Amino acid sequence: MSTETITPADSAAESVTTLVERLARAGRAAQKVLARMPSPDKERALKLAGAALRRAGPGILEANAKDMAAGEARGLSSALLDRLRLNEKRLEAMAAAVEQVAVLADPVGDVIGEDARPNGMVLQRVRIPIGVIGIIYESRPNVTADAAALCVRSGNATLLRGGTEAMHSNRAIHAALVEGLVEGGVPAEVVQLMPTQDRAAVGAMLKAAGLIDMIVPRGGKSLVARVQAEATVPVLAHLDGINHTYVDHSADPAMAAQIVLNAKMRRTGICGAMETLLIDATYPDPHGLVEPLLAAGCELRGDARARAIDPRILPATDEDWDTEYLEAICAVAVVDGIDDALAHVARHSSGHTDAVVAQDQGVADRFLSEVDSAIVMHNASSQFADGGEFGLGAEIGIATGRLHARGPVALEGLTTYKWLVRGSGQVRP
Amino acid sequence: MSTETITPADSAAESVTTLVERLARAGRAAQKVLARMPSPDKERALKLAGAALRRAGPGILEANAKDMAAGEARGLSSALLDRLRLNEKRLEAMAAAVEQVAVLADPVGDVIGEDARPNGMVLQRVRIPIGVIGIIYESRPNVTADAAALCVRSGNATLLRGGTEAMHSNRAIHAALVEGLVEGGVPAEVVQLMPTQDRAAVGAMLKAAGLIDMIVPRGGKSLVARVQAEATVPVLAHLDGINHTYVDHSADPAMAAQIVLNAKMRRTGICGAMETLLIDATYPDPHGLVEPLLAAGCELRGDARARAIDPRILPATDEDWDTEYLEAICAVAVVDGIDDALAHVARHSSGHTDAVVAQDQGVADRFLSEVDSAIVMHNASSQFADGGEFGLGAEIGIATGRLHARGPVALEGLTTYKWLVRGSGQVRP
Repeated sequence: MSTETITPADSAAESVTTLVERLARAGRAAQKVLARMPSPDKERALKLAGAALRRAGPGILEANAKDMAAGEARGLSSALLDRLRLNEKRLEAMAAAVEQVAVLADPVGDVIGEDARPNGMVLQRVRIPIGVIGIIYESRPNVTADAAALCVRSGNATLLRGGTEAMHSNRAIHAALVEGLVEGGVPAEVVQLMPTQDRAAVGAMLKAAGLIDMIVPRGGKSLVARVQAEATVPVLAHLDGINHTYVDHSADPAMAAQIVLNAKMRRTGICGAMETLLIDATYPDPHGLVEPLLAAGCELRGDARARAIDPRILPATDEDWDTEYLEAICAVAVVDGIDDALAHVARHSSGHTDAVVAQDQGVADRFLSEVDSAIVMHNASSQFADGGEFGLGAEIGIATGRLHARGPVALEGLTTYKWLVRGSGQVRP
Repeated sequence: MSTETITPADSAAESVTTLVERLARAGRAAQKVLARMPSPDKERALKLAGAALRRAGPGILEANAKDMAAGEARGLSSALLDRLRLNEKRLEAMAAAVEQVAVLADPVGDVIGEDARPNGMVLQRVRIPIGVIGIIYESRPNVTADAAALCVRSGNATLLRGGTEAMHSNRAIHAALVEGLVEGGVPAEVVQLMPTQDRAAVGAMLKAAGLIDMIVPRGGKSLVARVQAEATVPVLAHLDGINHTYVDHSADPAMAAQIVLNAKMRRTGICGAMETLLIDATYPDPHGLVEPLLAAGCELRGDARARAIDPRILPATDEDWDTEYLEAICAVAVVDGIDDALAHVARHSSGHTDAVVAQDQGVADRFLSEVDSAIVMHNASSQFADGGEFGLGAEIGIATGRLHARGPVALEGLTTYKWLVRGSGQVRP
């Protein structure tokens, strides 16, 4: 959902392109300085940024009040207003998150491959920062601090383009961050906030191949879809989390019921939430799976066989199998064993997180092997699909693309590598 | 350099889009079958494909004769005709290359990360094929066999789109390959050749995000530039190899002279060839570097200080510092030590392969650390920039992009990964 003012852009297109180019070049120059900073110096600068955020708290809350007033005047939904809202507690969480990222292990310099050639040359692949990362986001002002911290920790410059609705908050947060970073010796241009809300600037970022190395969109589906459709810069993102949980006939019924309820209802609005429940036709206790969902207030939409389990299950349409509800609604289909389940997943999964509940190891192995979603789980709730839960300490996002990084992406996904070749005078025959 | 017939495409655009979609979907379905084949079966199928290429030799040579005659009639340059030409020896090399790829280690299934969480879940990242790879290439018919073999070995389907000038050769090679692969149990649609030479089909491939997972362009600069500019599908490629060799004052003069001569003159037409020589102003024997190049027939174009080394050095223009000659021409600049060298490389390198010759380890370390090209070398010739020389057994190409895979890309770069999560009933609190 985009809540930005749509500004006619054609007349300003050239200047916006020039602006993006200027910012990206300044970012790259600053990134080269950051890339040479030892890891403890980056850590210290991020801690100073966290402290600066705390110091700037009152000013940030004032700026946020302006955004909230404007948002209310524009009639933003209460959900959007809630995302926009900052308070003491959220500010503290934002500063603490920056400090947590500060102490995450720095992947830059890690050797990910090494080989000595017969001619004596020694080859290494070494992690390096990607370079300049563009972050395009909506509503939540904390993304300004989160994304910037992850980029700085991994040695990248970032160009932030937040939503108009959070403009004042973002500017105040950005100013505080930069103050702390500069105090710690990081060039100010390592973290830049797009100075205009002209939507054409987003278009210019998406086409800035060679200037911006990767775009991470964070926001609603329409934002991600636009970014994926228009970008010639590589994009790290997921559009949908149409996640399946398949309960095999061999599943432990108590475990299956718990996992299914958690996967759907723990939080319905997160991208790892289950959206479709697949029940093996020979599973002994299908009612034990749907009853807790219904009791928890979840609307179920099923195919004919699923509806036979409980009369409260509504009829599903074709569209339901391809819908990410992000609320207390779940599609339910009865399938004929693992083959049918795999076929359903292959046809309808968005490649985010799919899970199997089974005691039969052969069934579990087939599901793990044949489903090629970014995350495939056995006997666990899909709600675990999260960088923190995966031990990454944080995440810049979850990616369902097939290249570079998949699933929860944190610091490692913000790095690339180069080959180092050390010789002693070798020439090629 | 594109030698294809330009066909007006607008009227056929929709059908070409549908065609690409149909081929990509058929490829993906076939890839799912291939992905489940054990590695020894893929190896056997590729060996059968090699044998089939040998059997089909006379037919392939006949088809190639048609392309050669058409190319001569169209007045193709002798360089292009040479690339197009097949003979017994080249056919044998093509079949042998397929058999060599057959026995390369299969990266699919490799575990690239493993972690046990405090809640007992075990996480693994496991290599899987990317899916459907589009290869867009020109002239050399052997790419049909090479690229297909690398894709099959790594479990991927491929959609090949070769140049019109090699149309008959490509069709004959493709038919033989598929015959062998099918004999080995690989579905025919794993390797598909675009059935039309309509250039709009290339455009449709480049925009087929979600259908084609990665595009590898192999050919001249105009082809690569078009692909990079138009594609919304991720592209693995390099546009230029503007490679520098910096000779530091601490370099061993004999080693430096050898490396410089080899880097430029061993083969001038490959992307790893040196294009700019940077000589430290305090290097004791600059004439010892330029003299062998001049003696070998290399034209040198230098800045004022370089021209002072030898009167035969012509004046360089600004353009020379950003030119990939791919012939016996080399730009030469005198720089003031490592800082100046790094600044020159940062400004002009295309990010392919840059090298330093130095005995001073501090200088070498700075060059290796601060140059972020895909390949950075110390005391070795840039002509080693090659998948075979790097021990990869083959290469699908050399990439200078910053994501996914960089430098020489072989089987590993044709894979991605998924997260496997093995639980015992965990739900998220």
